[in-house]
Amino acid sequence: MGKQKALMDKLVRTFQIRHMLLRQALAECLGTLILMMFSCGEVAQLVLSGGSHGMFLTINFAFGFAATLGILVSGQVSGGHLNPTVTFPLCILGREPWRKFPVFFLFQTLGAFLGSGIIFGMYSGSFKGENATAGIFATYPSKHLTLVNGFFDQMIGMAALIMCILAIVDPYNNPIHRGLEAFTVGFVVLVIGLSMGFNPARDLGPRIFTALAGWGSEVFTAYSYWFFVPIFAPFIGVVVGMTVYQLMVGYHVEGEARENREEEEKEEQEEMLKMSKNNKTKTVFAYAALLTKLQ
Amino acid sequence: MGKQKALMDKLVRTFQIRHMLLRQALAECLGTLILMMFSCGEVAQLVLSGGSHGMFLTINFAFGFAATLGILVSGQVSGGHLNPTVTFPLCILGREPWRKFPVFFLFQTLGAFLGSGIIFGMYSGSFKGENATAGIFATYPSKHLTLVNGFFDQMIGMAALIMCILAIVDPYNNPIHRGLEAFTVGFVVLVIGLSMGFNPARDLGPRIFTALAGWGSEVFTAYSYWFFVPIFAPFIGVVVGMTVYQLMVGYHVEGEARENREEEEKEEQEEMLKMSKNNKTKTVFAYAALLTKLQ
Amino acid sequence: MGKQKALMDKLVRTFQIRHMLLRQALAECLGTLILMMFSCGEVAQLVLSGGSHGMFLTINFAFGFAATLGILVSGQVSGGHLNPTVTFPLCILGREPWRKFPVFFLFQTLGAFLGSGIIFGMYSGSFKGENATAGIFATYPSKHLTLVNGFFDQMIGMAALIMCILAIVDPYNNPIHRGLEAFTVGFVVLVIGLSMGFNPARDLGPRIFTALAGWGSEVFTAYSYWFFVPIFAPFIGVVVGMTVYQLMVGYHVEGEARENREEEEKEEQEEMLKMSKNNKTKTVFAYAALLTKLQ
Amino acid sequence: MGKQKALMDKLVRTFQIRHMLLRQALAECLGTLILMMFSCGEVAQLVLSGGSHGMFLTINFAFGFAATLGILVSGQVSGGHLNPTVTFPLCILGREPWRKFPVFFLFQTLGAFLGSGIIFGMYSGSFKGENATAGIFATYPSKHLTLVNGFFDQMIGMAALIMCILAIVDPYNNPIHRGLEAFTVGFVVLVIGLSMGFNPARDLGPRIFTALAGWGSEVFTAYSYWFFVPIFAPFIGVVVGMTVYQLMVGYHVEGEARENREEEEKEEQEEMLKMSKNNKTKTVFAYAALLTKLQ
Repeated sequence: MGKQKALMDKLVRTFQIRHMLLRQALAECLGTLILMMFSCGEVAQLVLSGGSHGMFLTINFAFGFAATLGILVSGQVSGGHLNPTVTFPLCILGREPWRKFPVFFLFQTLGAFLGSGIIFGMYSGSFKGENATAGIFATYPSKHLTLVNGFFDQMIGMAALIMCILAIVDPYNNPIHRGLEAFTVGFVVLVIGLSMGFNPARDLGPRIFTALAGWGSEVFTAYSYWFFVPIFAPFIGVVVGMTVYQLMVGYHVEGEARENREEEEKEEQEEMLKMSKNNKTKTVFAYAALLTKLQ
Repeated sequence: MGKQKALMDKLVRTFQIRHMLLRQALAECLGTLILMMFSCGEVAQLVLSGGSHGMFLTINFAFGFAATLGILVSGQVSGGHLNPTVTFPLCILGREPWRKFPVFFLFQTLGAFLGSGIIFGMYSGSFKGENATAGIFATYPSKHLTLVNGFFDQMIGMAALIMCILAIVDPYNNPIHRGLEAFTVGFVVLVIGLSMGFNPARDLGPRIFTALAGWGSEVFTAYSYWFFVPIFAPFIGVVVGMTVYQLMVGYHVEGEARENREEEEKEEQEEMLKMSKNNKTKTVFAYAALLTKLQ
Repeated sequence: MGKQKALMDKLVRTFQIRHMLLRQALAECLGTLILMMFSCGEVAQLVLSGGSHGMFLTINFAFGFAATLGILVSGQVSGGHLNPTVTFPLCILGREPWRKFPVFFLFQTLGAFLGSGIIFGMYSGSFKGENATAGIFATYPSKHLTLVNGFFDQMIGMAALIMCILAIVDPYNNPIHRGLEAFTVGFVVLVIGLSMGFNPARDLGPRIFTALAGWGSEVFTAYSYWFFVPIFAPFIGVVVGMTVYQLMVGYHVEGEARENREEEEKEEQEEMLKMSKNNKTKTVFAYAALLTKLQ
Repeated sequence: MGKQKALMDKLVRTFQIRHMLLRQALAECLGTLILMMFSCGEVAQLVLSGGSHGMFLTINFAFGFAATLGILVSGQVSGGHLNPTVTFPLCILGREPWRKFPVFFLFQTLGAFLGSGIIFGMYSGSFKGENATAGIFATYPSKHLTLVNGFFDQMIGMAALIMCILAIVDPYNNPIHRGLEAFTVGFVVLVIGLSMGFNPARDLGPRIFTALAGWGSEVFTAYSYWFFVPIFAPFIGVVVGMTVYQLMVGYHVEGEARENREEEEKEEQEEMLKMSKNNKTKTVFAYAALLTKLQ
C-alpha cells in the first residue's frame, strides 16, 4: 500500500484548494446539486410513472431528506446553507461576512442548475407529450392560488422555516448535538411540506436550465411573471421570521449569555488575583518556615 | 463588519427582556404558535385540497413534528411545555413553581390563537361553502362517539401521553440525550395519533379565534357543550397518568437516587475526614523527618 | 413551595418499593401495558374506522414506536425487555439471572392483559357485529398460511429480531448511544413488520382477556390450537437467532474484548510495579540529595 | 450462575475465531443476509399479498432500514459495507487494503444468496403461477427503460449514493456521531429510493439462487444479458461519485487536516523544547535557592 498511499498523498496536494471562500462555494454547489437531484428526481419519478411511484408524503420525505443529505455533504466546510435565504439572515445577524452572500447565491444556483440537468439527462427519453412539464424543475402557482395568495404562502412558509432554523443553529439557544443538525433541518423542511420555491437558488437554477432545455422564455413570463415570487417572497419572509424569533427568543438568550460571560470573566479575574495573592502568601510562608527551621 | 456588529450588540441590549417569567411566557407563546401553524396548516391543506394533499398518516406526522419544532424553538428558555397539561403535573410534582401555570396557560392559548389566525389568513379566500369547517382549528367529536366515550378517549389518551413525557423528562429516569428530548416528545405525539384536544390551549385558542372569525358562538355550544371536554378531560387524564407512572416507576427511582445521594455525601464526608487526618499525619511526619535530618 | 416539597418527599418515602425484582417487574408491567395500548389501539382504530384511519404502514409504525415508548418508560429500571423472548436469551447468555424469567413473563403478560382491557373499554360500544374480531387483540393465522408455514414464519421472524436486538445490546459490539437504544429497537420492530405473535406475553395476555370478555374458549381452540404457535415458535426462533449471531459475530468480539482486558490488566500491573520501583528510586534519590546537601 | 458462566466462557473460547479477515468476512455475510432478508421479504410480501401489504414508500423504508440493521449487526467488526461498491472506493482511497475486496465481495454475495434462500423457504408454498416472479429477488429493467437508460440510471444513482456515504464516513469531514452512522446510511438508501441493483452482491447472490431454484439460466440471459448492468454500472458510478466528492470537498478537508496536524506537531515539539528548557531553569533555580538558603 506504500505506493498507493504516496499517490493518494500526491493527489491531495495537487487538488487541494487553499482559498477558503472558493472551497466553501464548491461545497455549497455540490450540496445544492445533491439537494436538487434527490428532490427533483422524486418529483420526476412521480410524474413520469403516472403517480404509481410516490405520493404527497413521499415527496415531502424526499425534500426533507434531500436537504439532510446536502447538508451532510457540505456542512463541515461551508455550513450547508444550500439556500440564499439561509445565508441572508446569518449575514444580517453578523454571523457570516456579507461577501459570502453573492458568492453562495451564485454557486447554489449553479448547483441547482447542474442537478436539474442531470435529472433531465437521466429521464431524457421520457420528457415528451404531457409529461413535458417544466413544473418538475421549478415552481408554478397552484391553480387555486392568486398571485397575492402565492406570495403570502411563500412568505409565511419561509418565515416559519427560518424561525426553526435560527433556533436550531442559534449558538446561544442550541440543545441540538452538532451531528444531528442536518437531520433536524431536514425534519423542518419535511414538516413545512414546502413548495420548492422556498429556496430562490433551488428555483432559479432549474428555471434557467428549463429555459435552455427547450421550454423557452415562457418559464419566466408565465402566470404574470410568477418567477419573481419564489425569488423575493422568501427573502421578505426570512426578515419577518428572523425579527419575530430575535424579539421573542433570540435577543434574550444572547443577552443573557453575554452577561454570564462578562460575569464569568470578572469572577475569573478576581479568582486569579486572589490565587496569585494566595500563592505568594503560601510561598512566602513556606520559605519562612523553611528558613526558621533551618536556622 | 465592525459597525454592523456594534448595531447588533445595541439591538441585543435594547430588546433584551430580563424578566425571566415574561421571557419564558413569550417562548411558550412562540412555540405554541409554531405548533399550531404546522399542525393546523396540514389539516387545512388536507381539507382544502379535497384529500389529495395528505392523509391520516401525514396528519399524525405533522402533529408530531410540529410538537418537535415548537419544543426546539422554546425548549432552552421555557422547557417547551406548549400545553397546560404538561405544565400542570410538573407543578404538582414540585418541579415548576405554581405561578407559572396560569401565565403559561394564557400565553400558550394566545400562541394557538395567533397561529390559527395566520393559517386562516393564508387560506382566507378558500374558506367558503363546505370547506368552511371549524373542525380545521379546534376539536369536535367524531360522529360515532358519545360525549362520555369522547371524554374517556381524551382522558386515557392524555394519561398515556403524560406517562411517556414524565418518563422522558424524569430527572431520575432519563436515558435520553438532552438534544433528543424534543424528538422523543414528537414521536410520542405521533404515536398517540391524537385528537387535537389533548392540548387545552391548542384547542381553546383557535376556538375563540373561530368564534371571532365568523363561526359564532356555535363553536362553544355545539354537540351539547362539547368544548368542555377537551379542556377538562386532559387534566383528569394527566392526574391519572402521573399517579400511575409515579407509583409504578417514578417514586422508586427517585427514592433510590435520593438514598444514593445521601450515602455518597456521607461517604464523602468520611473520606474528607480521613483525608484531612491523613494529610495532617503526613505533614507532621514530613516536618518531623525534616527536623530530624536537619538537626 | 416548602410545604409541597415536604409532601412530595413524604410520598416518595411512602410509596418507594425497595425490593429490586418487584420494582423491575412493575416497570415491565407498565412498559408492556403501554406497548399493548398503542399497538392494539392502532389496530382497533383501523378495524373500527373501516380502514380509513390507518393502513399497513401506520400499523408497522405504531408497533415500532409503541415498543420505543414502552422501553423508554421501563428501560432504566428493568432493561425494557417487554417480551419474554428477549429475557430468555439474556438468561441463557448469563447476562440476567434465571429467576427473572418467570417473574418478567408473568408481569409482561399481566401488562398486556391490562392494556387490552383499557382498549376494549375505550371502544366498548363499538365492538359489535362484524367488528367483534378477537384478531384486534391476539394473533390468528392468515388465511393463506398452513400451521407449519405460520410456525416457520414466526420462528424466522423472531430469529431475525433477536439477532438485531443482541447486536444492539451486545456490551462488546455496541456502537449505539444508550439513549438511542429504545429508538433502535423500535426501528427493528418496525422493519420486521411483524405479526403480533412475536411476543408471547403480548399474545397470551390479550388472548386470556378476550376469552374472559365474551369471545370464550374459542380463542384457544380455533385453527387447530393455533395459540400454541405464537407462544413456542418465538422461543425456538430466539435460540436459532442467538446461536447464529453468537457464532458469526458475538463470540469473536467477546473473546477479543476479554483478551484485551487481560492484556491491559497485565500491562497495568507491570506499569504499577515499574512505577513503584521508580518512585522508590526517586524518593531514595531525593532523600540522598537532601542529606548530601544538608550535611 | 457460576456453572453457567463457566460454560459460557468455554463456549467463547471454543468458537472464537482469531483470524481477523475471516471474522470480518463472516460479519459481512451475516449483515448482507439480514439486509437481503428484510428488503426482499418486504417485496415478497407486497407481491404475494397482491399489493395490500405494502406500497412504494413501504419498500423504500424496508430497504433503508434493512441497510441500517445490517450495518448495526456487522459494523463494529467489518465496517458494515454490505456492498462491494462500498468496499471498492475505500480500497482505491487507501483506507482499506485491497485483499479485502475479493473476500468481502464473495461473502457479501454468499450472504445475499442465503438470505434469498430463507425468504424463498418461508413463502415456498406461495411461489406459483403469476407470483413466480424472479423479480422479487434480483433486478430486471423497467419496461419503459432501454438498456442504456438503465445503465445510466444505475450509474448516476450509485454515484449519488457513494458521494453521501463518503461524506458520512470521511474521517476529515465527519460530524456524525459514530452510533448514528448506521441510521444515516439507512436514510441515504431510503432517499435514493433505489433499484436493488445498486448492490452487485445483493443482485448476483439472489440471481444465482433463483437460477438454482428453478427459474433456470434465463435469469442471466433475459433482456439482452441485463444482469451485467447491475454488476458493472454501480462500479463505474462509484468511481464517478468518488472523484466528484474528492475534487469538490474531500481533498480540501483532507489536505487542511494534514496541514493542521503537521503544524500542531511542530508547535508541540517547540513547546516541549521550551518546556524542557524552562524546567531545567526552574530546577536549577530551585536547587540554587535551596543551597543558598541552606548554606
